[in-house]
Parts: sequence; C-alpha cells; structure tokens
Amino acid sequence: MPALAPPRVDRPGPDIAPAYAYVRDRTASLCAPLAPEDTVAQSMPDASPAKWHLAHTTWFFEEFVLARFVSGYRRFRDGWDYLFNSYYQTVGPMHARARRGLLTRPTLDEVLDYRAHVDAAMRRLLVERDDAGLLARVTLGLHHEQQHQELLLTDIQHLFSLNPLQPAYRESRAAPTSAAVDLRFVAGRHGVVETGHAGEGFAYDNEGPRHREWLHPHAIANRCVTNEEFRAFIDDGGYRNPVLWLSEGWDTVCREGWRHPLYWDDDLETTFTLAGRRAHVGAAPVCHISFFEADAFARWAGARLPTEAEWESFAGELPVQGNFADSGMLRPLPARSTGGASGGPLQMFGDVWAWTASPYVGYPGYRPAQGAIGEYNGKFMSGQWVLRGGSCATPAGHVRASYRNFFHPAARWQFSGMRLARDA
Amino acid sequence: MPALAPPRVDRPGPDIAPAYAYVRDRTASLCAPLAPEDTVAQSMPDASPAKWHLAHTTWFFEEFVLARFVSGYRRFRDGWDYLFNSYYQTVGPMHARARRGLLTRPTLDEVLDYRAHVDAAMRRLLVERDDAGLLARVTLGLHHEQQHQELLLTDIQHLFSLNPLQPAYRESRAAPTSAAVDLRFVAGRHGVVETGHAGEGFAYDNEGPRHREWLHPHAIANRCVTNEEFRAFIDDGGYRNPVLWLSEGWDTVCREGWRHPLYWDDDLETTFTLAGRRAHVGAAPVCHISFFEADAFARWAGARLPTEAEWESFAGELPVQGNFADSGMLRPLPARSTGGASGGPLQMFGDVWAWTASPYVGYPGYRPAQGAIGEYNGKFMSGQWVLRGGSCATPAGHVRASYRNFFHPAARWQFSGMRLARDA
Amino acid sequence: MPALAPPRVDRPGPDIAPAYAYVRDRTASLCAPLAPEDTVAQSMPDASPAKWHLAHTTWFFEEFVLARFVSGYRRFRDGWDYLFNSYYQTVGPMHARARRGLLTRPTLDEVLDYRAHVDAAMRRLLVERDDAGLLARVTLGLHHEQQHQELLLTDIQHLFSLNPLQPAYRESRAAPTSAAVDLRFVAGRHGVVETGHAGEGFAYDNEGPRHREWLHPHAIANRCVTNEEFRAFIDDGGYRNPVLWLSEGWDTVCREGWRHPLYWDDDLETTFTLAGRRAHVGAAPVCHISFFEADAFARWAGARLPTEAEWESFAGELPVQGNFADSGMLRPLPARSTGGASGGPLQMFGDVWAWTASPYVGYPGYRPAQGAIGEYNGKFMSGQWVLRGGSCATPAGHVRASYRNFFHPAARWQFSGMRLARDA
Amino acid sequence: MPALAPPRVDRPGPDIAPAYAYVRDRTASLCAPLAPEDTVAQSMPDASPAKWHLAHTTWFFEEFVLARFVSGYRRFRDGWDYLFNSYYQTVGPMHARARRGLLTRPTLDEVLDYRAHVDAAMRRLLVERDDAGLLARVTLGLHHEQQHQELLLTDIQHLFSLNPLQPAYRESRAAPTSAAVDLRFVAGRHGVVETGHAGEGFAYDNEGPRHREWLHPHAIANRCVTNEEFRAFIDDGGYRNPVLWLSEGWDTVCREGWRHPLYWDDDLETTFTLAGRRAHVGAAPVCHISFFEADAFARWAGARLPTEAEWESFAGELPVQGNFADSGMLRPLPARSTGGASGGPLQMFGDVWAWTASPYVGYPGYRPAQGAIGEYNGKFMSGQWVLRGGSCATPAGHVRASYRNFFHPAARWQFSGMRLARDA
Repeated sequence: MPALAPPRVDRPGPDIAPAYAYVRDRTASLCAPLAPEDTVAQSMPDASPAKWHLAHTTWFFEEFVLARFVSGYRRFRDGWDYLFNSYYQTVGPMHARARRGLLTRPTLDEVLDYRAHVDAAMRRLLVERDDAGLLARVTLGLHHEQQHQELLLTDIQHLFSLNPLQPAYRESRAAPTSAAVDLRFVAGRHGVVETGHAGEGFAYDNEGPRHREWLHPHAIANRCVTNEEFRAFIDDGGYRNPVLWLSEGWDTVCREGWRHPLYWDDDLETTFTLAGRRAHVGAAPVCHISFFEADAFARWAGARLPTEAEWESFAGELPVQGNFADSGMLRPLPARSTGGASGGPLQMFGDVWAWTASPYVGYPGYRPAQGAIGEYNGKFMSGQWVLRGGSCATPAGHVRASYRNFFHPAARWQFSGMRLARDA
Repeated sequence: MPALAPPRVDRPGPDIAPAYAYVRDRTASLCAPLAPEDTVAQSMPDASPAKWHLAHTTWFFEEFVLARFVSGYRRFRDGWDYLFNSYYQTVGPMHARARRGLLTRPTLDEVLDYRAHVDAAMRRLLVERDDAGLLARVTLGLHHEQQHQELLLTDIQHLFSLNPLQPAYRESRAAPTSAAVDLRFVAGRHGVVETGHAGEGFAYDNEGPRHREWLHPHAIANRCVTNEEFRAFIDDGGYRNPVLWLSEGWDTVCREGWRHPLYWDDDLETTFTLAGRRAHVGAAPVCHISFFEADAFARWAGARLPTEAEWESFAGELPVQGNFADSGMLRPLPARSTGGASGGPLQMFGDVWAWTASPYVGYPGYRPAQGAIGEYNGKFMSGQWVLRGGSCATPAGHVRASYRNFFHPAARWQFSGMRLARDA
Repeated sequence: MPALAPPRVDRPGPDIAPAYAYVRDRTASLCAPLAPEDTVAQSMPDASPAKWHLAHTTWFFEEFVLARFVSGYRRFRDGWDYLFNSYYQTVGPMHARARRGLLTRPTLDEVLDYRAHVDAAMRRLLVERDDAGLLARVTLGLHHEQQHQELLLTDIQHLFSLNPLQPAYRESRAAPTSAAVDLRFVAGRHGVVETGHAGEGFAYDNEGPRHREWLHPHAIANRCVTNEEFRAFIDDGGYRNPVLWLSEGWDTVCREGWRHPLYWDDDLETTFTLAGRRAHVGAAPVCHISFFEADAFARWAGARLPTEAEWESFAGELPVQGNFADSGMLRPLPARSTGGASGGPLQMFGDVWAWTASPYVGYPGYRPAQGAIGEYNGKFMSGQWVLRGGSCATPAGHVRASYRNFFHPAARWQFSGMRLARDA
Repeated sequence: MPALAPPRVDRPGPDIAPAYAYVRDRTASLCAPLAPEDTVAQSMPDASPAKWHLAHTTWFFEEFVLARFVSGYRRFRDGWDYLFNSYYQTVGPMHARARRGLLTRPTLDEVLDYRAHVDAAMRRLLVERDDAGLLARVTLGLHHEQQHQELLLTDIQHLFSLNPLQPAYRESRAAPTSAAVDLRFVAGRHGVVETGHAGEGFAYDNEGPRHREWLHPHAIANRCVTNEEFRAFIDDGGYRNPVLWLSEGWDTVCREGWRHPLYWDDDLETTFTLAGRRAHVGAAPVCHISFFEADAFARWAGARLPTEAEWESFAGELPVQGNFADSGMLRPLPARSTGGASGGPLQMFGDVWAWTASPYVGYPGYRPAQGAIGEYNGKFMSGQWVLRGGSCATPAGHVRASYRNFFHPAARWQFSGMRLARDA
C-alpha cells in the first residue's frame, strides 16, 4: 500500500505520466498473488482470465493511443488485436468472449513483455506530447484500466470460489465486528434538481449531459443493508415467497436454486472472500446480491431502492471517501458511526456498489463519443441496471458522485449490495 | 361489425351488463374463423393457444369476481383453476406456461360451455348488485379480456405464419395504397409536465399515480415510420452494421439471423398477415419490429425514439381515434393527411404500437393493487420496454393516452412499430 | 373387435385388397375416441400428432404406390408431400419433425378426405393390377401403417399423461390379478445357428439376410419381469446406486430425476394407462422402462438381457400368439401358466417389447432396399438397441420371430419391458 | 527418444520397477514443451487439462495401489481424491468433469510434487513386494497411464487448434511424401474363429473372454484410406448427400456444419497438427474423422467398415509394429510398400485408430473386474464404437491385436481413421 497519496487520475494534466505509471503498476501488482495457472481460466462467460485483463488493458493503449498518436508505431505482435479486443466492432473482429479461457498462449510472461513494450512507448509519448486530445485519451485509458482492476479481483474471486480447495487470493486482517449503526432514513431534496456530471474533471460520456430532473419527496437509509438484516429476510422465507419478487427474479430464483447471496454457504454461516472462506460479519453490508434480491429485500422491508438521481443528490454533497481497494481489506466493513456529527448517510462510497431502481439508459441529450470509443458505454443501454458509489474492490480515486456502473439484474459476482429508500 | 357504437368499457357504471355481454361475445366471435384444431397449438412459449385465451379470460371472472362476490359459488370444474391461472402466484400453482399447447382437453366445446356457465352467473350477479368494488373488478376483467383479444389475434398470426400452407385467418379488403404523408417533426412541450392517468375513467394501476416530470425540448414525427422507409434502412445495410445496434440487439440479430422485420419474406416483397401473405404497402407503418430494430432504425435516421412522457404529452391532447380492430382491417394502414388542418401528429392511436425509449418501471409513488390483482402489472417491471397507442388489433375503446403496454425488447410478434423523435 | 380373423397382411397375395381395407379402417378406428383437438398436439419431438400419423401413412401410399404405379396420378393437394414426408431425403425436403404439432391445418376433416381420396385410388389400382412389385410395395405400406397404429397409441398415451386432467383414451375392462407364474430359466440352443428371416412371407429388409451365428450356452426366463419384481429393485435402492448402471444410463437417471418407470406415480402405487390412471397389477410385466433401466435391473438380479439371436432362437419355435392390440386391453397382462405343458417361455409375443442386449446394426451381408425405401430401416443403425416380440399395442399379425424393433436406450414411452437371460 | 527399447509393460514381472519409472517419466516428458498455462485449460468436456492428466494418473496409483497395498499410507493431500477421481463412483464423489479447466490450483509444481511423492512410495513398495496381485494392479496402472499419455496429446492438439495463434506443441521433421501404395483387398478367414485375448500377457477385462464367433466371407483393404481418397469423397459432394449417411450422422453434419475432417482448413489444403498447421500429405491416412464420416465414406466407396472380429483375425497374425508415439512424428505417415513380400495388410498397428463396424459391447461371458476397477471399461458399453490398432500418438508396447478402444460416433479429436472392408 502506498504511503503517499497516489497520483490523481481524475483529470488530464501534467501529472499524467506518474498517474500512468502508478495505475499500470497497480494492475500488475494485483497479479502478484497469482500463479501463472490462475491467470488462464475463465469461470463463466461474464468473467475474464486475469491474463486477459492484463493484455486487454494494454491493447487499449496500443489501439486507442499508440496506433493513433504515434506515427509509424509497430504493434507488439500481429494478431493480438484480434485476441484482446473486447467488444469494439468499429475496430475489427474479435475472439469469442466465452472462449477467452482457452487462450493459454500468449503466456503470462509474454503478456508482461507486451505490457513493458507498450509502457515504454507510452512513456516516450508522454514525454514528447501533452496536447489535450492525447491527455484525454490516456486518462480514459487509465480509468478503463481501473475498471479492469476491479473486474480482475471479482473474476478471481469467482474462479477460486468454484475450486473445491477454496484457495485464498490474499490473506487480510480480520474485519472489525462492531455492532451495526442504527438504521435511520434521511430526507432528500425534491422538486427540480440538476443531475449528471458537471465541472472539468474526467467523466465517462454516460455521466452527462448534466440535466434537470424532477425529484419526488423521498428519504434514504443512513447506511447499507447488513448481513444480519438480510439474514432476517432469509429466515422469514424471503427466497420462498414469489410475491416479494419481480417475475423474472422469481424465475431466476427457481431456475438457479438461489437460497442466499452468492458465496454464502448453505448454513448461512460463512461467505467466500478474497481471503478464503470466512465467518459472516453481521454488521457488514450484505454483498454479492443481484438486483432481483435487492429489490425483493426492499419490498419485504416495506421500502424500495433509491433512483440514481436520488442517490446522486445525496452523494454530490459528500466527499468521495470510503473503504476502497487501496485499504487492502477487499471486503465490505460495518459502517462506523461518525460520532453523531453530520447525520448524513454513511457508506455512500466504497464497501459495496448500491443497486438503484434505475434501468441503465442515456440521459436526455446523451450522445456517445465519436468513433470506436463511442462503443464504450452507449451500446449497453438495454437490460441492465445502474449501481452507484464504488466498492471495496474499486481503486480509490476512480469513482465520483455521477459515476454510473451497470450490470444485468441477475449478476451477483460483483461487490454489489444495497441501500433502502422510501417515499417521504 | 356492430352498426352502433359498442358499450363503453372505460368506466364502471350502469352499462356494465351490456358491456360485459359485448366484450365476452366479441372474444368468441374472434374464434369463428378457427377450426377446433387451430385453437390448440402454441407456437412459442410467449404465445398461447386460442382455446387457452378463451378459458383463461373466463377463469379471470370466475376467480376474481364470482368466487369472491358470490357466496357459495361453485366452480365449473375442479382443477381448471390450475390449468387456466396464468401467473397469479397468490392464487395458487399453475400449469407450466410453455406447455399450454399440450392441453388438448378440455376441448373447445367444453371451454365454450365454461364460458356459458360463467356468463350466466355473471349476468345474475350484475342484475343483483352494483356496488363500486364489484363494478371496478368487472371493469378490470373486461379490460383484461380485451388485452387477450389482441393476443389471441397476434398468437394466431404467429402460429399460421409457421405453417407451410400459410393459411389466412380471415380475408380482408385491400389496403389503400396512397403515398405516404410527408415526414415532419412537431415540437412538444417542455419543462415540468404532469403525466400519468388522471380523472375517473378506468386505468390500470401502472398508469398512475399522476406525477410531475421534467421534459426536455423535443419534437416527434407527424406519423409512423413506413415500410418504404424501413426498406431503405435494410438496403443501406442496416442489419449488417453493428454500430447501429445496442449490444444485446446485435447479439440477437446474429443469433437469430434477422435480416428484416418478422413476417417479411427474404425478397422483401411481402408480409404475412392475418389475411395471408400479402404484398407490402409502402406507405403503411412498418410493423412486427422489435425494440432493437426500432432503436437501430432511429439511430440510422439520426433521430431517436420518444420517451413515454413525451409521447403522452402529445397524445393527451388528441381524441382516441384510429385504425383499431373494430375496423376489421387487422393490418396497419397508411396515414391519411387530414387536409392541412391541425398539423398535429397522425396515427398516435391504432395501426401499430409505438416502441418508446422508456424501460418499463413504476412511476414515482407507484403502489400495486392489493392482493392477487397486484400481480397484474407490477411484477413485470424489469427487462421490458413501454409501447404506446394501441394497434390495428386493439379493440376500440381499450386504450388511453396514459395506457402503458410493455414487451421484451426482442419481441416482434405484436403489432409493434415506431415513430421518430428528436431533441429540439 | 372383429369377430372373424382379420385378413393376413404378412404376405402379398390375392387378399391384398381386403387387407388394405382392413388396415386402413383400423387406423381411423383408433382415432374414434379422440376429439379433433387431441389429434393436433405433439408432446415431444419423438412423438407425432395423431392427425399427422393419419396423413403420413396416407402419404406413404400416395408417394410410394400411386405416384409410381398409376400413370398420371394427381396428388390430393400440392405441398402436402412436404408436410407429411417423415424422413425420406431421397424424395425431397420435409417439415421439421419437432414442429409437427404446429400444423393445425390441414384439419382432421381434411386429412380424412385425404385418406378417402387415396383409398379410392388404391381400390381402383388393386382391382386393375396384381403384379408382384405392386403387391410387395402395398404390403410394405400396410406394415408401415401398422407400425404407426402402435405409435399413434403410444403418442396419445404420452400426450394425455402430461395433461393434469389425466384423461383416458378408452376405458378397458379390469386386468386379471392372478399371481405371477414362478420364475424359471429355460436352456437354449448353442453352437452355430441360423438366424434372420427365412421363407416367403413379408419381412423388412433389416430382418435379413438369414445367416449363421455362434450362440454360447445360455438360458432365458420363462416370462417377463413383473411390476412387483421391479418394485423390489426400486425398494432396494436401484435408482440410487450408480454401480448398477451403464455410465450413460446413470447420467440420464441423474439428469432426468428418474425414480421409477415412466407413468408410475411417485408413491409407486399406480401407472398412467390408455384407460387413465390405474392401480398396479403386481404380476403384470413391468412396462415403459428404458434399455438403461432394463440393463440395470438385470445386473441387480445377477442376470443379463438376452441377445437378439438368443431371443430369436426361442421365438422361432413358437406360434405368434399373445396379448396384442386386437385384444382391446391395451395394457400388459400377467403371464398365464399353460398348465405345466410345454414348459417353454411365456409372453414371447405381445404384452411388452423385450429389450435385448443387442445394439441395432445390420446383419452380415445386409443391403438396404433400393431407392427411397432403402431409407426405411438402414440409416438408423447407430445408437439404438433392438427390441423383440411386439406388445399389447401391436396389431395382431404384424410381428414375427425375426422382427427387429429399435429405439434409443433412454426411450420409455413405448410398451417396452424386459425378460432376463443368463449364461448357462 | 530412447536409444534402447523401453521396458515391457505388457506383462507383470520382475521388470516392473523400471517399467514404472519409464512410463511415469515419459508422461512428465510429454509436458516438457508446455508452459504452465497450457496445462490448465479444458477445451471441451470430452478433453482434460494436461495438469489434470498428470494428477489423475498419479491418483490412480495412490488410490488403487498405495492406499490398498501399503498399510498406513498417508495421502499426499486431503481432498485431492475428489479433484482427481475421474469416474469411479465406487470410490467416492468427484469433481464435475466439465469443470476440470477451472482447477487452477493445485498448480503444476504442486502436481509434480504429488507425482514425486507417489513415485517415491511406489519405488519403496516395488522393492519390498512382488506378489501377483500387486504386480497386476501396477501393470494396470501403467497401461492406464499410457492411455492418458495419448489423451494428453490429443487434448493439447484440440486446445491449441482453437487458439487463433495456432501454436505448435513440438516441431517435427517433414513427413515423407511418397505416393500411396495401390489399394488391394485381402481375403480373410471365415467360419468359426476364436477371438479375444489369449495368453498370459496383460489385457483389459473387455478383451475377454476368448470366445468363438462366426465370420462370414470378407476381405479388407491392404492399407488405410488416404487423405487424397477422402478428398475425392469431399469433391464428389460427400458432405452434402444425406443418402450416404446414417441418420444421426447426417443430423450431426447439419448441426455442426461439417464440411471436412476436423483440423482441415476450409480450402482443404492443410491440417492442424501437433507441429502446427501443415500442408496435407496426400498418401497419408486420413485422420480425425468420426465414425459417421468413416461409415459414409465406406458407403460412397461401395464398401464397408470391418467388424472388430474381422480386423482381429488379420491383426492376430502380424507383429505389433508401426508408427507409434515413440517415433516422435506424432502424425500418420503414408504406408510403405514392403517390397512385394507377404502381401498382408499394412498399417494395421499405429498411424491411426481404425473405426470398426462394431458397437462396443461386452463379449459373450464378459464379467467386469471386481470392485472399483470394474468401472474401468464395462460401464461404457452403450453408444460407443470400437476402434482398433493404435495410432501415431499411442505409446509403443501399449496395444495388442485384441485391444479394444472405443469412442462416441461423433468424436473426431482422436487420431481416428479408417480401413475399408467388403463382403467376399
């Protein structure tokens, strides 16, 4: 863990070179606990091998920076663009997503050579040029890589969870076992509000344009839903009562045989974490739940999920602080009372991504970025739901109040949790 | 076709008995062109056999009216609630949806006896009582049955389309082949608007509560997108260009081999209709397209789909008139210029359901109805998109400006079309 | 049930015209208890709708007799060859097997008209000509139709079994509930034997050529395995013990959740029959078991299944008598002791088809018939196992000692049972 | 390649210790060209990762030798029996076959430690004891390991073939490009023959008991079918003509889109080999074909496949010599005329496994071995076909004339080819 604050990656500027070095190094560091074998396997089509993450993030700089900003740049290897393009149809065809786990070649060492090659070229480029277009593109690349840092962790956790040996990615110190902060609801603003990204810092295209929206009177919980609260839902037959569920959620419960959140054991005593299988911490946020489970819990609790605009209207007034990946815990922790101070909501950033009641669509006036980069976000605007706030696996400095994450409603392998809201 | 206007079913009142008789009779009439064999088959899990529609709508009155409002009511047959409950988990378990086509028993004649039995009991009940709770429930049942009238037609069309003999459900007179009305965009209101159902007439729970919403400056097309416009999209390679599509849409195009709207032949000359296979009418609205196709066409055209609030802000000011099922055409017709009159949008009601840019979720403050009836709409609020305005297969009098239909984004067997919108 | 013996269909001859009339009429009679609705549905890809059986058997005569033996014959309807060709690639393309249940048109009445049309043409032809080639082909068509008579019954039973109303195809009188005949093993011949069809009567191409085979010393049981014997296997954990099963059988048990033969209820008290759900008859042959179940039972019993050559060496010396469809029982009956007489095996013909230990392949020197008829049997010689002896749903006069039926090893919806054998 | 002949493993005896050392070392040597990453991935459920092969063969000795013959033996690691048991239900539950590729742990190094641990224990045991039961079990283990040596190669070839980089497992010298030996048919014995394993050497249980069988007059080809002969079948439309195929074969051709043998490119110019993609050698045996393709080719050629008894009656009189894995070529080679000498069939051993016309079932009187070892062969006796003679990936000394290999009829990733036969 760095003793000093890491370089900021939230705005293009003169510190881009150290930021680049820092982010790139951090990705490689995440692989230090892994054997070469661990970096190969793909546990499901939604996940990717660690080796692929290492190569794809490198390809992103090669394809979208070096090949476009360095005249005469020679790619490290012919054909690797086909292997490591994720989904940019504009750029060319790509290896089938579900078969990434069959790419035993290039080996980990070859991929690390690829990283070194691209990093060297990037260093040269960043010494020579500092025009705005370049800096903006590099900044995007760094945010892209930070997203994959989180995915690398969630994908390794999923892979290891399926191994009967239940290996640990990395030991971590015990979580504090304090009691949960009392649940309260905090009233929000209503009427016309402005929402979406404002200001000069970096943001993805899907965070804008900033626009007006009408908020209805509402309140949100002062902290996340905890494991022990979710346990009460289970004990009350939550997973056996179709009336609590959206229709597609109930179909999923029945088809998949869900009886508890992902990674819990059937006795509801432990959860599989990046530090191996561990006893539940009752006051810690419930994690690895789908949108369907979050929605059903909220209905059971006589509440609902917040909309993303409601969430953002609270978060926009808070500092972006919380239990991020840089803490090294890599698991959500109980909310800590801040001594009766502000009374504002806790855990808005870090710990667990909060499912919202908002399907992921474009804001009014939304225009994707031009060219291949326009495929980054816009084309996923169907069938997914917005999550907000980052998690214990998100790099510090990566998220913002306007940051919109999105996943399918049945996805559970992310560090996804929930916060209650209600009409006021 | 009735010479006189049919009884109104849009509000509970003293004319409920004739309305009941009219709607129930109309469902049976829709089956007149069918052989008993035609009423058995289920062409896909999303569709239901005509015989099942006849029985399920009857079960709805038996379960939600007679069993609850008539003391000592005896059900027509034991066990039929299991067969003909669609998805009301609160009421009890049900036959698997995908296996409805295996229910050769009860036969059509037995189902018609069931209808007669329930109709007789309903007639007696409606003579004896007129309390508000009863009238509201019966009105709901009639709207429910009208929805199934439309589904019965779309499901038969789908079934017949898969028969190599390409049978016609019913002949109809030729569609007028006038040229298309020139395309224009009509500016809408912006700022804070009220949207959702208001007033005393019947509405489903999902049409309310009426609430405020912020509309951004926008305009919508004066008519639906036509076959010939959609043909230009195809000719321009629309189905081969991934950049035009949402990611899940493109996956669907590739997996299903889509090359044109459902029911078109591969030479793009004809479409399969309820009157059999017919030549395209270029100026008629394109129909049987998915949300994905509507969205891709709009992107290709440099426009977008309207949100449901935008659509409703236009429609709320127009009379509910158009090419509905009662015209007997059962296919969308070219828009007819209204002589330079108002200049307002044409074809807002009838012809084709208009896909909107809005995922189907609850309005702010939405509460499902109490009890089993609460399962009617609320539990489907994930993964579907809103359509507006009714179609040529919708019974006249069934839709309203606030009416929210919803289907999965890949669904094409409904009379679904589109209207363009754009930011202003 | 005919008071007189039906015309023989086992050899082409002058009685072909009455045989034709008898067999054709019998098929139609089998549909008498069915409503038109019952004739439409297809309960699984392996089964066909009754209406399809009626039409396909008619197409067989139209395609393979009338179109080839009657100059200028005009087919009843254009396009029906596509609908009712089952699998004769030589003749032309065909409707997808799994979609036969969507063919609501032509209706049952139209199919009966088709039958009448073809029957009239056949009658004329059989008056005019009696050459050997024609008679052989017509005889084949009659045997073909008899096979479909059995399939029509098994397919209706399967369809009705999936209907929660559990309808009966036809009531039948109660089965005798005598005790089972004591189980004994009867020694067979060994050394070089001749096997396969001999003589002048009709046989399918796959019954020949007659050839020599070496039989090892062996014995077979004097009767079929009974329900009560099979019940003992279940009670002993037979369905939970992988060691008793072939590997693919065990996979099937686990995947399908098999716990008992098809049509038994989970309490092992009743079975679903063509007369509806009925109490087990303990001494009656176990029925509706797969090859995998027969094989596992035999292993549990310390025995094995007979090879088809072993079976045939016994059967060839017995009269072809037993409980066939003409008895009207349509369910297997307990073996009746023949008073200590011959001591030979009972129930070799009728009651249940006996699974053998022999995969279905061609005999040495086997040559399929020339032309499209060659597709009748030969192309199915992989992945299936031979059954022998006919069942309670087989028309009397249809089977022979050399008759080879064949099904996939997991198939259970036929009247398939078993007889034990062992090395001597 | 060893300069001296390897120790014999075909009979238990005093040379068991060097044989053990030789075979075990050979397996590890096969992994020398692989990166750790290559040993993890599973390209399809039928294949296994190289690392799994290394561990499973070791588990076989631990489970079936050390745990049973060494009192107090402590297993290397708890829980690994669950990971590395393949299919022995008698021994206990096992990891799902299709998920072997997710076992990134234990790592390759840990698996090699496992091998060292077991090898040391085995060496001690073989010094101390030489009783017949032990020697027989060890000999079985060595043959088992040799089978996995071949599978390891075929599974790596399959995995690498799916990598767009098309990596080579190991370079090999060019194949000789001599012209094909002229095709002739050699008459075989007929009448009663004895077949199956005889004598004292090692054999699997499924090779016995030796028994009599009646052979019909027949002849077999003097060499395997070649690439250029198979190319003529393709050029003649073999893959487009359903009449040539078994029904299940044709279904497979259509569903899988087969147009040529596995590993051929669509231009029919090259094949993917363990040495990477290489130009075809016309006179070399066609390889990587399914039973269905072999059967269709034979029908097209007016011939048939030999039965396994026919094949064995020829092979039993020949020395077991040919192009085995020890040659290092790892690809089939053209037959070399032996100078007009014996005139007997060439290529009976090595090069490619020959599909036979025989479904894989037990011989008359077959009894599986007692206990868990009885699961080795017997439970696979449904749905598979026998192949004979070994291949270029089979270790020398592993096969015999009585050796019965078996695979599903659609399997193509083995070194499977064909030889014609015909009735005489």
